[in-house]
Amino acid sequence: MRDATLNVAVIGLGLIGGSLLRALAVHGHRVSGYDADPATRATARTAAAQAPANARWHVTGSISDAVRDAQLAVVAVPLPAVGAVFDELASLGYVGVVTDVTSVKGPVRDLAADRLRTGGQALATFIGGHPMAGRETSGFTAADPRLFNGCAWVLCLSEDGAGLRDWVDLAALVTGLGARVVPATADEHDAATAAISHVPHLVAAAVAALISNDPLAGTLGAGSFRDGTRVAASRPELTAAMCGGNAPAVGRALDAVLADLAAARAALDGADPIGALTPWLTPGHTARLSWPPEPGESADLPARADVLLRLGRVGGWIESVSADRKTIRAVRPA
Amino acid sequence: MRDATLNVAVIGLGLIGGSLLRALAVHGHRVSGYDADPATRATARTAAAQAPANARWHVTGSISDAVRDAQLAVVAVPLPAVGAVFDELASLGYVGVVTDVTSVKGPVRDLAADRLRTGGQALATFIGGHPMAGRETSGFTAADPRLFNGCAWVLCLSEDGAGLRDWVDLAALVTGLGARVVPATADEHDAATAAISHVPHLVAAAVAALISNDPLAGTLGAGSFRDGTRVAASRPELTAAMCGGNAPAVGRALDAVLADLAAARAALDGADPIGALTPWLTPGHTARLSWPPEPGESADLPARADVLLRLGRVGGWIESVSADRKTIRAVRPA
Repeated sequence: MRDATLNVAVIGLGLIGGSLLRALAVHGHRVSGYDADPATRATARTAAAQAPANARWHVTGSISDAVRDAQLAVVAVPLPAVGAVFDELASLGYVGVVTDVTSVKGPVRDLAADRLRTGGQALATFIGGHPMAGRETSGFTAADPRLFNGCAWVLCLSEDGAGLRDWVDLAALVTGLGARVVPATADEHDAATAAISHVPHLVAAAVAALISNDPLAGTLGAGSFRDGTRVAASRPELTAAMCGGNAPAVGRALDAVLADLAAARAALDGADPIGALTPWLTPGHTARLSWPPEPGESADLPARADVLLRLGRVGGWIESVSADRKTIRAVRPA
Repeated sequence: MRDATLNVAVIGLGLIGGSLLRALAVHGHRVSGYDADPATRATARTAAAQAPANARWHVTGSISDAVRDAQLAVVAVPLPAVGAVFDELASLGYVGVVTDVTSVKGPVRDLAADRLRTGGQALATFIGGHPMAGRETSGFTAADPRLFNGCAWVLCLSEDGAGLRDWVDLAALVTGLGARVVPATADEHDAATAAISHVPHLVAAAVAALISNDPLAGTLGAGSFRDGTRVAASRPELTAAMCGGNAPAVGRALDAVLADLAAARAALDGADPIGALTPWLTPGHTARLSWPPEPGESADLPARADVLLRLGRVGGWIESVSADRKTIRAVRPA
């Protein structure tokens, strides 16, 4: 994966897979896409014919054809379908690098270790990935090659640095698309997304339910209700799959929120609710005011697993990878 | 208060008071404004001189001058300052109608009953009010006469219909400014705002605090974190005053959220988190999809306390009041 342009297979052509297909083509990579849905394949083929000649892609009729010459296979299907794709890659004897784009990383890491093998032998190198680039829209027709511009894209790395060479190559590819690569272990990723995405979805649903039997409250709802409950409009099946698929980490983050709110509840019952709530509100206020993190100091660092993971833990990210793949351009938050 | 145009005093010229001063002037009422801060008075005087000749207001140097000929006094000061203004109105022997614009209604109702009297005798008619028209900005310089266009504006009414005649006159004035008048008892108002504003503020602070010691999570935060925690950026003192000033109702709404989230927590620990979370998420999802309420059927109803309160309880509002003040044009949500 050290060539300037790569052969990449994208399996699953929804919003993320479709956007990645387009972005990789724009950046000169040779891309083959596949989707299990024939109508999506037809749409993607028509779009390819209409794309500029130097930014086209192929759409294949099978996973086998898509990955035939691929150095990298991106599995961009929903979580419940990932296992079957891994099985097919294993049965094809695919030995390139494999990454994914799903929102939980521990379970997918375990799935890859279990399935991407034959005769007891690991085949491909698996590097879990998660571009933080959701949108209200979905499907190939919403795909946008600029979707990843400036977005955080987690690439999972283990403490022992296994697969580091391929990890750095993948980081070079992803930063080349304009994304900020954030190094993290799968468990760190799952704990962080529980806090910043999964728990907010659960809390939004609980707050929105308060107006279920209270039309007066619904009529009075304004900005704080609108924003605080926006994601409750997401389909329950999708939110359940996302939260339930990361149940242990979501449970821990939810415990922290419940303990915090129990303290607020006690303050409301106390002798001086206003006086007690002011300090209670301050940590969240401080955290929110300093969010989102602004880019701070940047530095060239050696591409070592311990250095990379430490960068992720302080909230930093990778802006680019050197041509010799030995150093990374690291940005720390201000 | 049955004249087409009224003499109105606005005490406190922040965002809400200033906007109301401007809106009343635009609608042809004779308005006197007062603010305890001399700089704010100067700003308001300069703005009056620059306003169109038929939409000007007076700025007075005292509450006494402001209310001298007023049929209505609007107390638009922050909650902690309301009692002192009531005391001054009582000491002046003011006998017109008094309303306010603060975010809690039970405590202000009690304060009015206690303070707007002399020699054991009630002086003015007090009608609690709350325009749901917050903005990120504040102060007279942010005042906008169109702030109340289409906004819900609660006017409190008791079950026994005390002060109904003045209530209907005030509703005529407020609907004339383009607001939707929502009738509710003070306790109903406080329960509803606990659900749609105060609890969302507490929950936002608890979720925002999750990233306090987790820079990685902060870097990964995207849309659901941004929106779900937006109001945690409000000043802790103001949020504490708002929530703590409505402590009993906020406590009850928070209990409902805590019980609901405890059920989600149990689902995460269960054998089938995804299967259990889907039905758990559905009530909030359904409530959010049908929010905000769209105007539905409208009808002319008699201006009776029981009719008005029933309208508020089903999520309805008043669009206008008939010239003879006997009927209201009521809109129910679709």
